[in-house]
Amino acid sequence: MKDQLMKMLESRKSEIIEIRRYLHEHPELSFKEEKTAKYIADFYKDKDVQVQTNVGNGYGIIVTIKGGKSGKTIGLRADFDALPIHEETDVPFKSKKEGVMHACGHDGHTAYLLVLADCLIQLKELIPGTIKIIHQHAEETPPGGAKSIVESGVLDDVDNIFGVHLFPTDPAGVVGYRSGYTMAGRTYFKLGIQGVGGHGSSPHKANDSIIAGAHFVTAVQTVISRRLNPFEMGVVTIGSFDGKGTFNVIKDRIELEGDVRYMNSKTQQLIDKEIHRLVPGIETEFGVQCELTYTADYPPLYNDPEMTEVVRSSLEEMNDPDIKGVREFPKLSGSEDFAYYAEKVPSTFFFIGCKPKGMEEAYFNHHPKFDIDEDALLVAAKAVGQVVCDYFEIG
Amino acid sequence: MKDQLMKMLESRKSEIIEIRRYLHEHPELSFKEEKTAKYIADFYKDKDVQVQTNVGNGYGIIVTIKGGKSGKTIGLRADFDALPIHEETDVPFKSKKEGVMHACGHDGHTAYLLVLADCLIQLKELIPGTIKIIHQHAEETPPGGAKSIVESGVLDDVDNIFGVHLFPTDPAGVVGYRSGYTMAGRTYFKLGIQGVGGHGSSPHKANDSIIAGAHFVTAVQTVISRRLNPFEMGVVTIGSFDGKGTFNVIKDRIELEGDVRYMNSKTQQLIDKEIHRLVPGIETEFGVQCELTYTADYPPLYNDPEMTEVVRSSLEEMNDPDIKGVREFPKLSGSEDFAYYAEKVPSTFFFIGCKPKGMEEAYFNHHPKFDIDEDALLVAAKAVGQVVCDYFEIG
Amino acid sequence: MKDQLMKMLESRKSEIIEIRRYLHEHPELSFKEEKTAKYIADFYKDKDVQVQTNVGNGYGIIVTIKGGKSGKTIGLRADFDALPIHEETDVPFKSKKEGVMHACGHDGHTAYLLVLADCLIQLKELIPGTIKIIHQHAEETPPGGAKSIVESGVLDDVDNIFGVHLFPTDPAGVVGYRSGYTMAGRTYFKLGIQGVGGHGSSPHKANDSIIAGAHFVTAVQTVISRRLNPFEMGVVTIGSFDGKGTFNVIKDRIELEGDVRYMNSKTQQLIDKEIHRLVPGIETEFGVQCELTYTADYPPLYNDPEMTEVVRSSLEEMNDPDIKGVREFPKLSGSEDFAYYAEKVPSTFFFIGCKPKGMEEAYFNHHPKFDIDEDALLVAAKAVGQVVCDYFEIG
Amino acid sequence: MKDQLMKMLESRKSEIIEIRRYLHEHPELSFKEEKTAKYIADFYKDKDVQVQTNVGNGYGIIVTIKGGKSGKTIGLRADFDALPIHEETDVPFKSKKEGVMHACGHDGHTAYLLVLADCLIQLKELIPGTIKIIHQHAEETPPGGAKSIVESGVLDDVDNIFGVHLFPTDPAGVVGYRSGYTMAGRTYFKLGIQGVGGHGSSPHKANDSIIAGAHFVTAVQTVISRRLNPFEMGVVTIGSFDGKGTFNVIKDRIELEGDVRYMNSKTQQLIDKEIHRLVPGIETEFGVQCELTYTADYPPLYNDPEMTEVVRSSLEEMNDPDIKGVREFPKLSGSEDFAYYAEKVPSTFFFIGCKPKGMEEAYFNHHPKFDIDEDALLVAAKAVGQVVCDYFEIG
Repeated sequence: MKDQLMKMLESRKSEIIEIRRYLHEHPELSFKEEKTAKYIADFYKDKDVQVQTNVGNGYGIIVTIKGGKSGKTIGLRADFDALPIHEETDVPFKSKKEGVMHACGHDGHTAYLLVLADCLIQLKELIPGTIKIIHQHAEETPPGGAKSIVESGVLDDVDNIFGVHLFPTDPAGVVGYRSGYTMAGRTYFKLGIQGVGGHGSSPHKANDSIIAGAHFVTAVQTVISRRLNPFEMGVVTIGSFDGKGTFNVIKDRIELEGDVRYMNSKTQQLIDKEIHRLVPGIETEFGVQCELTYTADYPPLYNDPEMTEVVRSSLEEMNDPDIKGVREFPKLSGSEDFAYYAEKVPSTFFFIGCKPKGMEEAYFNHHPKFDIDEDALLVAAKAVGQVVCDYFEIG
Repeated sequence: MKDQLMKMLESRKSEIIEIRRYLHEHPELSFKEEKTAKYIADFYKDKDVQVQTNVGNGYGIIVTIKGGKSGKTIGLRADFDALPIHEETDVPFKSKKEGVMHACGHDGHTAYLLVLADCLIQLKELIPGTIKIIHQHAEETPPGGAKSIVESGVLDDVDNIFGVHLFPTDPAGVVGYRSGYTMAGRTYFKLGIQGVGGHGSSPHKANDSIIAGAHFVTAVQTVISRRLNPFEMGVVTIGSFDGKGTFNVIKDRIELEGDVRYMNSKTQQLIDKEIHRLVPGIETEFGVQCELTYTADYPPLYNDPEMTEVVRSSLEEMNDPDIKGVREFPKLSGSEDFAYYAEKVPSTFFFIGCKPKGMEEAYFNHHPKFDIDEDALLVAAKAVGQVVCDYFEIG
Repeated sequence: MKDQLMKMLESRKSEIIEIRRYLHEHPELSFKEEKTAKYIADFYKDKDVQVQTNVGNGYGIIVTIKGGKSGKTIGLRADFDALPIHEETDVPFKSKKEGVMHACGHDGHTAYLLVLADCLIQLKELIPGTIKIIHQHAEETPPGGAKSIVESGVLDDVDNIFGVHLFPTDPAGVVGYRSGYTMAGRTYFKLGIQGVGGHGSSPHKANDSIIAGAHFVTAVQTVISRRLNPFEMGVVTIGSFDGKGTFNVIKDRIELEGDVRYMNSKTQQLIDKEIHRLVPGIETEFGVQCELTYTADYPPLYNDPEMTEVVRSSLEEMNDPDIKGVREFPKLSGSEDFAYYAEKVPSTFFFIGCKPKGMEEAYFNHHPKFDIDEDALLVAAKAVGQVVCDYFEIG
Repeated sequence: MKDQLMKMLESRKSEIIEIRRYLHEHPELSFKEEKTAKYIADFYKDKDVQVQTNVGNGYGIIVTIKGGKSGKTIGLRADFDALPIHEETDVPFKSKKEGVMHACGHDGHTAYLLVLADCLIQLKELIPGTIKIIHQHAEETPPGGAKSIVESGVLDDVDNIFGVHLFPTDPAGVVGYRSGYTMAGRTYFKLGIQGVGGHGSSPHKANDSIIAGAHFVTAVQTVISRRLNPFEMGVVTIGSFDGKGTFNVIKDRIELEGDVRYMNSKTQQLIDKEIHRLVPGIETEFGVQCELTYTADYPPLYNDPEMTEVVRSSLEEMNDPDIKGVREFPKLSGSEDFAYYAEKVPSTFFFIGCKPKGMEEAYFNHHPKFDIDEDALLVAAKAVGQVVCDYFEIG
């Protein structure tokens, strides 16, 4: 079946690209992917599969492909939301929606998986188990779609899940894997600092919230520089210091927002504890009132070593001209809500090179000029197809 | 003449109040006081005086009252602009212009001076000199009106200028004076800090402008705490820390705005020098680009000791039931563009109590609930009238 | 009597200088002035006065001169301790005690008062009241001598006290006065910060006390820059940051010491409250233990307006070629334990110019090269003598 | 030969322990190991080897064992200096030198290597190559002994070097290895900050060096928290803030000392560059003069992957009851001047567990109660002996 699948995929390469371009032209923001979800659901119309829509807290779609024999159940996941970014590329299929762009490759994820799913449906009699195709909404915006899909229970019978991401660090043809903690977990925080406003000339009658905020910013650096094991990865970024006011008026209230990154739950807990200690210190020190919102978004992504080994060995044994290299990826500081699936069942998330041909260094995901080499889409389809076959030990 | 003047003023008390209420209902922002100026100019129509309009950089009006005999020339100044404040009082003559309010008493200043000027016009044959009535626009917003009026030359022949301000620190009937440096000078500054934006998880690929800004805020405190003579008054307020961004994106650029206060030019120069030293230090330290705008607005107000003594002795000798007390005022940290007149010729600026009856502590100037005891307006008219008579040594 | 007194003083000018030089050669540190006290007590031997020695917490001496008639009782105070400074002048009567120096003029204070006291003893029949000569030990080192002398009760019958200080800001012949708060009060503080030591390479296993200390230093600046009324004088100096350790070991404990200055008790209380709020904030913020010692040393010196007026008018009416000028002094940031007398009874402390002839700017008190124009000593004696006569209304 | 060597070592286990105990009783500080060096040199007296003494910048000793056949040359290194620590153990062979202690296991390193060397000398005819025994002085104190031994040229003909360290993280019997960057490099720095001293009450006449120092401490945290790739290890510790002064005197000069740690030269260069940028920023910002001494001590220790593989495979194939486990060690934040050898030739440094029996968690190296399970010494000898045999492919 493996050869047959590969040939089917090769023959549908241009279809994959077409689907991707259509989605690219019609991006929708997280939790608002109504038309995208309809497009996906329509794709499966009249196919011999069970389709669940509106799964989880949004437009999630689960497609269940029951194989000819009973066996294990795996999930294959692709996300389909876009970003609030104004596209600056020159591609002919540029976003038609002002200020919204598929700048993270989710259009490609969805395109390859639709076609791969269709092929697997056609071959399903040969499959000794079940495949659940997870078309996931809202990866970009916490709380994300993954958590709610897990909580919905539709994956309760799934044994393992695989997913991929397009990254332009490597050219099309290269596939990357990594075992263990691979992508950072993230916590969102917001810190409101309430002082007392007043006239710029009379600081003693007011209580300047900007002062307290500035001291928080300098003090919180020590959480990373002095409290964290220097061999551990951790980041605290204050991305927003909202203290806009009037030059001659003492600001009564400011609001800081930021995020925290970590590669494991020990670091997550440490930073959590330290920031929660620091904030009341600032309150006492400056006599202000602080309100801290501190919400873990996505956990660190843990790639199960066994599943990662399935992927690695499967890909390295591939003898396919489209697969030009398989390498261990470094850890990544970005976050992914695939981590919720990986918390639920042993899973692995791997990487598909997509650097546009002829570029020394590509624009990275989330850049307004982000672009991909579309050859990578067939690579994704083949790589995942290969893993599925080897997982079910189908020759 | 003095008695006559006082009686004339007493008889026109309700007119003063009416004018004030009319102006209060029709406030106009600095540099936009078109209708107010017309109202004032119309007041002088058919009176035997010279009226110059559109003086300086706005709607300034100079009314020249030539006395029966030649002698010195004095100026009497009242400002007439309002503030961008939404009025929250319950007075029946509340502002009819949404978001604009006479919250600093300039309506009262103008009302008393119009009626006083009219009386002086009627008595002008008895005056051995000239009086220039200065109806000044735009006191609230730098660069203000005073500087441009001085620069226009219309006061080149003036020997001394007097002005007053309503303050609700004291009840109606109390008049305050102070010799020497009396109100603070002010400098506006804006500091743009340009770093490099980036993804929240990768601080090393960006250069976080919020970090540099927070260090500036903590470092600039030492200008006041360690560089300034502790016997000198000085304030550096950062009223705006405009660093609003996205929680997971490193902020590329922030903008701070603030003001500096001082009671003399030595302190002004010291703080100026220190901030200009500190900023390039921050640039080097954090590898950011800083852009500093640093503009002196209003100078410290220096009340000429001799002119202040004229006022003090004149008022203390008054035997008038409306004048209930004369006291030395403390220094004030607020700023006033009357300071420009005082730089030009020996002048003094004094204070008229206006605390509403029955209040323990009044809402201060610039508060949305600022209100006055209208009895204070006759006090102002009488006090300034008395000073004029004594200045010209008219019995 | 006044003329007689002045002539007596003039005739003993060289004796005053001799005494001062003797004391200058034999300086003794605060609380260790055994020989100086004996020298003073010996001076009064066989004179018709009551001498109390070892008054207060050291070598204080009170000499009571009872006048011919009954009346009020005044105190005249001079201090007699020296400083732990290595003298660097070239005077022939340079300190003979290595590392100890009369660098604050207390030798001169004592010299003039001894001779003045002797003259007053001789003239005592003419005095309608009592004079208590207060030779005070230990002015330089808290808790000082003044407080304990007040507490001893020996001044319980005193109505008013006068004292002077030599300052080289003005030439000999100039006398300075100031009413109200005139010299700063001072509080000593020590802040121990206990963290957890450790290996320099493993900050997360330790808790770095230097980090917490540095944040305290930057945060405490805001007490002066933002909490204090900008028209009030206040200083917080951290004079010692004792964190010496080893370059590759995380410091477990540091100790900071400093002082606080203020011109009135309202400011004293404000800074006290703010520092006591800030310290537990630092504890919480950094998880360290802080130990704060906070001890008010000397109060702000308050010169009673009425007594100051006695001095001012008395001196200004003097027609004496030695008294070349009388001026209002500025406030001084230094501290003086004369403030304890002034807390007890209405008193005033005034200033005797002593700038060495021919110097543009003199070395200030406490400098190893501090020196005086010895003409100032007769000025001091005459000025205080004059005040005594006028106080008792002796012609 | 391998079996023979192991049996010889087993038979001399108690001798190894005796030597270690003798050295433990007679510790000597870095660069002062005169007697220790003599003891070592005496050990080789009358043996058929070449002994070089006083090698490098101290008491280094190189013993050359020429094998029966020609071939490669390897170095085996053990260090022999002690630490300025007051021993707090209860062992019967406790340090006899007050304040000096073998608290890092160098006594054990030397003991095992002496006996192993003696065995190899006896078996040398069987060795197809040359072994240089490197008894190194002064590992604990920069610049250390290793660098100077390398520079002396005595190792110019050496192909590879092996060394071990006792660590009580694992019980005796466990041997650890790690490929690539394994121990941190270290840089020493000293920062003198020169301001202007003055009286505590007059900060504006001085320039407070403690203020500038505190700002440096808070600012330098951002080098780790914001400039460093969060996946990289880096530490900046300020171990000493020498600002001891007098509470009421503004401190003119302070001196900071600290160290920097990193696992590779890229991080080393980054932190170097950032600190060198930050310091002139502080100078400009606060108008102080800074003097920065910044000296790289020991490089990061890089274990050659090929040599590490030699060690790993050699040890894992050992079938010896004394070797109970072989594991990959984590990276270590401590530093080691073995790194200089590893810079010169492909080398590897590995780890010998020595946790005292019955302890849950042992006192770590450099602790006054540091102790070892002496069984570890035979483990060290056997492990290194095994590696030597396998290196030379001696059966």
